Amino acid sequence: MPTSPSLNVPDLIRTKRDGGEHSRAELEALILGYTRGEVPDYQISAWLMAVYLKGMTPQETADLTAVMAASGEQLDLGVLPRTVDKHSTGGVGDKTSLILTPMLAALGLTVAKMSGRGLAHTGGTIDKLESFRGWTSELSEERFVAQAHDIGLALVGQSKDLAPADGKLYALRDVTATVDCLPLIASSIMSKKLASGAHTVVLDVKVGAGAFMKTLDDGRALARAMVDIGTRAGRQVRAVLTDMDTPLGHLAGNSLEVQEALATLRGEGPEDLTELCVALAVEALAAHGEDQVAAGARARATLHDGSALAKFRAFVEAQGGDPALVDDPARLDVAPGRAEVTAPRAGFVERIDALSVGRAVLALGGGRERKGEAIDHGVGVELVRKPGEAVAAGETVVRVYHRDGRGLDTAQRLLAGGLGIADAAPAPEPLILDRVF
Amino acid sequence: MPTSPSLNVPDLIRTKRDGGEHSRAELEALILGYTRGEVPDYQISAWLMAVYLKGMTPQETADLTAVMAASGEQLDLGVLPRTVDKHSTGGVGDKTSLILTPMLAALGLTVAKMSGRGLAHTGGTIDKLESFRGWTSELSEERFVAQAHDIGLALVGQSKDLAPADGKLYALRDVTATVDCLPLIASSIMSKKLASGAHTVVLDVKVGAGAFMKTLDDGRALARAMVDIGTRAGRQVRAVLTDMDTPLGHLAGNSLEVQEALATLRGEGPEDLTELCVALAVEALAAHGEDQVAAGARARATLHDGSALAKFRAFVEAQGGDPALVDDPARLDVAPGRAEVTAPRAGFVERIDALSVGRAVLALGGGRERKGEAIDHGVGVELVRKPGEAVAAGETVVRVYHRDGRGLDTAQRLLAGGLGIADAAPAPEPLILDRVF
Repeated sequence: MPTSPSLNVPDLIRTKRDGGEHSRAELEALILGYTRGEVPDYQISAWLMAVYLKGMTPQETADLTAVMAASGEQLDLGVLPRTVDKHSTGGVGDKTSLILTPMLAALGLTVAKMSGRGLAHTGGTIDKLESFRGWTSELSEERFVAQAHDIGLALVGQSKDLAPADGKLYALRDVTATVDCLPLIASSIMSKKLASGAHTVVLDVKVGAGAFMKTLDDGRALARAMVDIGTRAGRQVRAVLTDMDTPLGHLAGNSLEVQEALATLRGEGPEDLTELCVALAVEALAAHGEDQVAAGARARATLHDGSALAKFRAFVEAQGGDPALVDDPARLDVAPGRAEVTAPRAGFVERIDALSVGRAVLALGGGRERKGEAIDHGVGVELVRKPGEAVAAGETVVRVYHRDGRGLDTAQRLLAGGLGIADAAPAPEPLILDRVF
Repeated sequence: MPTSPSLNVPDLIRTKRDGGEHSRAELEALILGYTRGEVPDYQISAWLMAVYLKGMTPQETADLTAVMAASGEQLDLGVLPRTVDKHSTGGVGDKTSLILTPMLAALGLTVAKMSGRGLAHTGGTIDKLESFRGWTSELSEERFVAQAHDIGLALVGQSKDLAPADGKLYALRDVTATVDCLPLIASSIMSKKLASGAHTVVLDVKVGAGAFMKTLDDGRALARAMVDIGTRAGRQVRAVLTDMDTPLGHLAGNSLEVQEALATLRGEGPEDLTELCVALAVEALAAHGEDQVAAGARARATLHDGSALAKFRAFVEAQGGDPALVDDPARLDVAPGRAEVTAPRAGFVERIDALSVGRAVLALGGGRERKGEAIDHGVGVELVRKPGEAVAAGETVVRVYHRDGRGLDTAQRLLAGGLGIADAAPAPEPLILDRVF
């Protein structure tokens, strides 16, 4: 039964079925009723299909998101200055958060962030940080806020009570063919961001064959929907659209990505990764009123003056990790086994499919198929050559870091299948495709 | 889990969501899986909404119907000659089956029919026949077939195992705003008709404000869909589209309708009811190859030569009812209370809303709100005047037959609300609007 006796669930389904617009009260009846178990799955799944086929207006999408955010705990970060959160729509080898968040702290912003664990072929920031022995994602809310206040950076696992409506709706969408629906995707992401309490959110919307959004137009539409939701909720939201055909940087796998992140924090990172982190930092500063050009210089400086690295060290230590590993990343556990995937002929690397890399890491034991599974932080993949580079026949293109050969055959098969060699160098693709705010 | 491991339910939902066409195997996986409880409600409701919004091709609709018919028991009437079934899409004061079925038996056809009980404002043939003390709708299949063979007419309650998929789907549609969807309505009706085994089916599709199909175009579309399903299943199906703004005949309520049906079987019935029964009988004969004009004369003759009444008497007696009541209908139990609804001013009766009449009978105790409730066979409503007739101010338009005043206030209020008086006589509407075969 809905919250109000005047709101009848079949009538609400009928409204959306016929292309009508829901009021906020109607969405509350549906979504909060569903979260409390009062509206059954079978009514919500019919409604989800109607939403899928009839869409939602920007106001409805914003209302749905606000209702989902209000379905559980909502963090109040009001005591913290200049709070900023970051979200990526999911990538392979995406260690951006490890670099960006200490950069933002060094720039005087406050990152008090909830992060997730990896699932299937995508990694999670929490898993990567657990490469630091002793580091924990479990902090009391009091300690979390105090640390964010002191260092400018604190990171915890996502609370189960954060936007519980989203978890329930997502599980239902997954089995009813209603996942790839713009207002539902945008509200799912943004409900958690709104409930997490940051004033500013920078979004990295991945576009490409390996991403959820296959075309730039689709990516732009998602970015605009999320920016619009944030604006209507009184937040500052800015999105960068980035190419995701190839993994960022050269390394994928938990400890390997931490090593690459630390190199980037020392100003020695790969160009694509560095540029993306600077671009996202610029958006965060711009959201707080800073000039774009000056912001770019300031952001880049944190990678050369040691300030971002210092923030990262303090952050790792504050959450129980060994700070010595920050200064001596070679001591991080990396699996000892090595194997190669070589170029089948001479030419130029045209493609190293990000999804294949993600699945290879999963096969090696570096990811999990199901929630709660243990993972091997030391395994991974190194892209020795990246798209555009010339290779000789038989030259190593990808190096595999494995533990006792576990999953190696599968990983090599996946990687060989995801590798394309062309006669001519492919036209260089820009990493940053667009910005939406 | 679907029947075949290669058929994944979300993929099937996706097919319909994207406007694709299901194969029969896919519909079997969905519908039989659902009937067996292997596919959950929430997936079927998402699929139903996709069907609602994307439609079904005639072949899909026919396949869906056949799968639903095959979800339970299927009667084999192959031993009986020239079998015919009849269905009405639901009306108030619709005693057609009581008259038509003995007419068909008198015409040499065989009616071995399952009927339902009334629910809400619509009456059921079984309830009406139970006005004959002792009459039972419970026959063994053997006795049912033997009686149909001997008399040409046998009528039982609908088996719970007849098209169980339909019952389950209907309950789900009812709470997910997916009821008024043409392929789903057509397959729901026709699945039971196919499973009931008759070679020929005549359909009375009601059109008008009081009917499920509000416009003639909608009614035609439903009729065509049902005829098409029947044809694809190798049956003969013919539909008559009839106006349903006003109840048929003058009486509504179980015993009252039986009295009117008996008058009609004696050739003394109201014109609208007589004409509809003749028209439906003509369709049944035409389906068996008879000439329309000759069929009309033959059908009408059964109401004047006593042959239809004789079949009805034999039928009532064979199923345990008192045949003396057939010959002396005044002895049927009619409630003694009388009340009137009068014309508020002089003019012409413009409208006696069928739905209001149905609800009035329900309020008086002559119908049931929920399955299994006992009903009062004696109460009802008499339309003393019908649309088009002149009335003086204060003249009786509707007479109420009540028991000790039960529900009388509500019934009178409903009837007064459903009564329209105009200054001029309304243009006469034909009863039979179209035929589809």
